[in-house]
Amino acid sequence: MGEGFNYLFNPRSIAIIGATAREGSVGGVITRNLLTKFRGRVYLVNPSYTELLGHRVYRSVLEIPDEVDLAVIVTPAPTVPRIMSECAAKGVKVAVVISGGFSETGEDGARLEREVREASQGRVRILGPNCIGVYNAFNGLDTFFIPQGRMERPRAGPIALISQSGAVAAAILDWAARKGIGVGIAVNYGNKLDISEVELLEALAGNEDLRVVVMYVEGLKYPGEGRRLLEVMRRVTKVKPVIVYKAGRSKSSGRAVKSHTAALAGNYEIYRAMLRQAGAIEVNNLMDALEVAKALATQPLPRGNRVLIITDSGGAGVQAVDNVESVGLVVPELPQEVRSTLAKSLPPFASTANPIDLTGSATDAMYKFVLDTVLPTGHIDMALVLAQMQLPGMTPKLADYIIEARRFGKPIVVYGISANEDARAFKARLEEGGVPTYDRLETAANALRALYEYAVTRGLVRPR
Amino acid sequence: MGEGFNYLFNPRSIAIIGATAREGSVGGVITRNLLTKFRGRVYLVNPSYTELLGHRVYRSVLEIPDEVDLAVIVTPAPTVPRIMSECAAKGVKVAVVISGGFSETGEDGARLEREVREASQGRVRILGPNCIGVYNAFNGLDTFFIPQGRMERPRAGPIALISQSGAVAAAILDWAARKGIGVGIAVNYGNKLDISEVELLEALAGNEDLRVVVMYVEGLKYPGEGRRLLEVMRRVTKVKPVIVYKAGRSKSSGRAVKSHTAALAGNYEIYRAMLRQAGAIEVNNLMDALEVAKALATQPLPRGNRVLIITDSGGAGVQAVDNVESVGLVVPELPQEVRSTLAKSLPPFASTANPIDLTGSATDAMYKFVLDTVLPTGHIDMALVLAQMQLPGMTPKLADYIIEARRFGKPIVVYGISANEDARAFKARLEEGGVPTYDRLETAANALRALYEYAVTRGLVRPR
Repeated sequence: MGEGFNYLFNPRSIAIIGATAREGSVGGVITRNLLTKFRGRVYLVNPSYTELLGHRVYRSVLEIPDEVDLAVIVTPAPTVPRIMSECAAKGVKVAVVISGGFSETGEDGARLEREVREASQGRVRILGPNCIGVYNAFNGLDTFFIPQGRMERPRAGPIALISQSGAVAAAILDWAARKGIGVGIAVNYGNKLDISEVELLEALAGNEDLRVVVMYVEGLKYPGEGRRLLEVMRRVTKVKPVIVYKAGRSKSSGRAVKSHTAALAGNYEIYRAMLRQAGAIEVNNLMDALEVAKALATQPLPRGNRVLIITDSGGAGVQAVDNVESVGLVVPELPQEVRSTLAKSLPPFASTANPIDLTGSATDAMYKFVLDTVLPTGHIDMALVLAQMQLPGMTPKLADYIIEARRFGKPIVVYGISANEDARAFKARLEEGGVPTYDRLETAANALRALYEYAVTRGLVRPR
Repeated sequence: MGEGFNYLFNPRSIAIIGATAREGSVGGVITRNLLTKFRGRVYLVNPSYTELLGHRVYRSVLEIPDEVDLAVIVTPAPTVPRIMSECAAKGVKVAVVISGGFSETGEDGARLEREVREASQGRVRILGPNCIGVYNAFNGLDTFFIPQGRMERPRAGPIALISQSGAVAAAILDWAARKGIGVGIAVNYGNKLDISEVELLEALAGNEDLRVVVMYVEGLKYPGEGRRLLEVMRRVTKVKPVIVYKAGRSKSSGRAVKSHTAALAGNYEIYRAMLRQAGAIEVNNLMDALEVAKALATQPLPRGNRVLIITDSGGAGVQAVDNVESVGLVVPELPQEVRSTLAKSLPPFASTANPIDLTGSATDAMYKFVLDTVLPTGHIDMALVLAQMQLPGMTPKLADYIIEARRFGKPIVVYGISANEDARAFKARLEEGGVPTYDRLETAANALRALYEYAVTRGLVRPR
């Protein structure tokens, strides 16, 4: 990752310019978060104080007796050009300008924004202005200014999020935290005065801790950006999966995009074609983006599009087939030889065609037998396991059998909507063991679809 | 509702044939549930006992010194013909045969099933066999044999569920209970020896406590059923909305349907056409079915397809437009006169075109002002309110403003994914006040789409 981006995501030292202890204020939340969570050096800057929360406060960044890798600026817009000059003089590497009141408010703001750019003298890279900044779960860097309690922070994980909208990023991180989905780094670039989504994509793709990049895009702003994004994305997807949710798909939502981020939503069909060409995986909402990312972060890539479905509910099996096929994958009938092997050890009422329906009499051991019998064969490429922990024969032990079945080197995802104690234990154990679980069949199907599409992008299977 | 069905859903007295106290067994769960929850008389029948759980046990239904409206039969299949003869002799009105081992297991079972029919002498209506039976939240009738703890029961509400699959019904009721969605009556008809989904639909449509019927259908079994279902559904949808999730949509899932319920999945396109013709509302999964039902149970019908969107997150607004338009509704730009009125009282950075974007500085009072200004005008037909309780200016008080806005007689649904304390209070207050809340935009859009479609069915608007 470029030098500048290392300072953005992994600074050794941070100056908070506009630091305050005021409860609930933007600066107050950021000051508290960084002081308590950031694993690096934090300096407070504010000419109105000499001490805050037991820490010394500097009048200006220039007074700090240390190198400053990252400046987080939360002062009113008119003060930012001067502060940026000081940052440039100090040798600050990157500035995250949280403050709003720039080009998003009209011509006066746009002029201020240009002054900020000039003040940086090309020496300080700038994220923002008018952004929510960076969340890095690995080192506690967190400029998201919504207090814990109002917004939960997700645990560290292999997913990166690049969001054109700060509020959307905050909402989905809160959701991810509650769902237990691990997000490593999330970033929002606001008015995009300097650092763009294209550079962020390239930087995060190069980060070893991250295995998947999720992008929320409403539209692009400057000429030539589409082509650059395509180029970079094409390069990135050769090494790391990129999942994109493109919002602003119609004329009316394009109008909303313009008023929201001053970007051009563009023709959605052209975006779709571009994303496909670049090898990106498209989804229709951010929840699905993160859920699908879980699968890409943990599962091997399949060598084909054939899905084995195992179920303890015939009805859920039927629905699973519909969902899997509606995303273009197939649920092949198993050949007679495999069916005979299954039939010999399964109860007579079990269905062995695929879906394998173990019925309400299903036990953990039956699932294990089916996984161990069918997964090693050449007849299927991945497995969707449906398991309802409502049934008497089912226990969380099944999680271990499924985790063991990872040795066959084929993707496995698990669906179940029950949420009793056993079900929660079952799902927690699976997630810990690297098997993604879903409570919507369409999401599970999308996860398998994404794995297949990415296998095609990586040249592991020929497209159907 | 037909006499027989009144005995099925609202019996005064029940006999449990095969009653037992055995923990976790089918009979044991049903015996305990009915003894503790059913608000009516319960008699236990089992020749092996004279007393169970402090209640007298009769050797046969014939010994019971009372009329028996409903018999719940949980004994092994071979005993059921004899038991059915006794029920007929006793004058039992309806029998729910939970027991499996009938036509679903092959020719021997099919023969037994015919014997059961003959034994009933056309005097006892039969639900099942091989079914999970009836759940009636209003009177505590509950033959679902999965113990509480493994499967939660939903609170009483205006939604009815008719499910071709018992396991699917049990799973979705458990989910509904955890989501706080009220379900009044749920029923599964198993092998459909006698009572069919068509009759159940007609019966539940006539029930005053129920405002919406949800059906889970995999396929039909007997000749002429499709036509009868169409006829009844067409009649029912004139007075009550019917939401259908048809599973088994492809060749492979048709194969799964056949092995699951011995039904013919049929050509999905023909089903779709039939459902549309009958005025039914189609959805793609059961979660959406129940979520959409919430809106139909609580909201007035719109007089057109124009949606007002109010948001505190520009990005969520953009996504909302995409979702609303993808289901065929429109998000019209508001006329200049309304925009001027809004602009006079909203902060300058708010967008007034539609979506109305109040931005991160949104307050409850701004939402109230927008609702009160725009809803009474002739420019929109329904409202989708997006509210993130992450923002400092937002409090659960907003729920009251939204509930008050119901006076304008237009449908309102609310979306928000945050789940902090304020968000939970906000949603709970709304649901209590008759405003449905959603945590997925596509579900919220589907709810509005369903309201619109049903308004068309009822002749309140001309189809677009």
